[in-house]
Amino acid sequence: MNEGPLHNLIKMLSSLPGLGNRSARRIALHLLAKRESVMLPLARALQDTAENIKDCSICGNLDMHDPCSICTDDRREQHTLCVVAQVSDLWAIERTNAFKGPYHVLGGLLSALDGIGPSDLRIRQLVERSENGAFQEIILALSATVDGQSTAHYIADQLDTAAIKVTRLAHGVPVGGELDYLDDGTITTALKSRSNAV
Amino acid sequence: MNEGPLHNLIKMLSSLPGLGNRSARRIALHLLAKRESVMLPLARALQDTAENIKDCSICGNLDMHDPCSICTDDRREQHTLCVVAQVSDLWAIERTNAFKGPYHVLGGLLSALDGIGPSDLRIRQLVERSENGAFQEIILALSATVDGQSTAHYIADQLDTAAIKVTRLAHGVPVGGELDYLDDGTITTALKSRSNAV
Repeated sequence: MNEGPLHNLIKMLSSLPGLGNRSARRIALHLLAKRESVMLPLARALQDTAENIKDCSICGNLDMHDPCSICTDDRREQHTLCVVAQVSDLWAIERTNAFKGPYHVLGGLLSALDGIGPSDLRIRQLVERSENGAFQEIILALSATVDGQSTAHYIADQLDTAAIKVTRLAHGVPVGGELDYLDDGTITTALKSRSNAV
Repeated sequence: MNEGPLHNLIKMLSSLPGLGNRSARRIALHLLAKRESVMLPLARALQDTAENIKDCSICGNLDMHDPCSICTDDRREQHTLCVVAQVSDLWAIERTNAFKGPYHVLGGLLSALDGIGPSDLRIRQLVERSENGAFQEIILALSATVDGQSTAHYIADQLDTAAIKVTRLAHGVPVGGELDYLDDGTITTALKSRSNAV
């Protein structure tokens, strides 16, 4: 078991995010037990997706068409742009139905540790999109982490904040969250940003 | 994102053992970010493995050849057979280098809960293999769980224990295990099976 296609497959599976050696072996054995019903269809689905899913050249979303179905949907409100780090963040916001405008996917966050600089992200494209005056507001919907906040600061510096309102997501107590289990930073922020109860 | 090849791929990935919706989405996005270097090679590896890895008709092991390289290796000792539930158990024992004989992979364990009966496992083939008198001993290397132990009992009943010695793995304190953290059942078994210290 130290060579051959099975060893190779397990090695490839174990390098996927969240999978280790043991889970890769388990998945490989599961697949081999269901060659016709699961394994070959999965191989075809991978190839099909790799060939047919494109990066949207406007917003960076993944879709079967370029521009994507969100960018070409003229029923969506066009005055507010939502900036997210990853396509998964876009999906998370779309699930809420709380935002009706277009998106801009950066493709990651600035990170000194991982060596990700401004040129590795779609920041230049964002600045260009913002310059034609189509957007009244740009929402920086980035994670409340060090990388997320430094990326937000960097982008806010690049944008013409005199012409466009640049906002960020509210910090505070998550809905359903118990105070006793929250960290000090969240409680401090929630206190500072308190609002009228009635 | 409710249709199309990407949605289909995420659905297939999330049905693999140990993966949920969130980890499937994360893997799909990781793959799409590396279409040429990871995604298409993985699709080919899956197809290659599905086509070239066979079930050994003697022992049930997975290998590029049938019979497998363990069954055809005449340098291995042939008088003792090791019975395991899964190919992953075979790999675990092979990694130890502590067993030098052939194997018999059952393909699972008897389980009333999951509706797995004797005819779903390779028990009949095991009995047939044991009847030609080639083996002096059969080791039932099955998990120390309810399903593992009831499978071991069932198999021991089927085998001609007058002609062949049927053994099981020792129960006791795992090497490196601290008594304080072990369950009562393991300590009781380890006490009962105590051996001379010198």
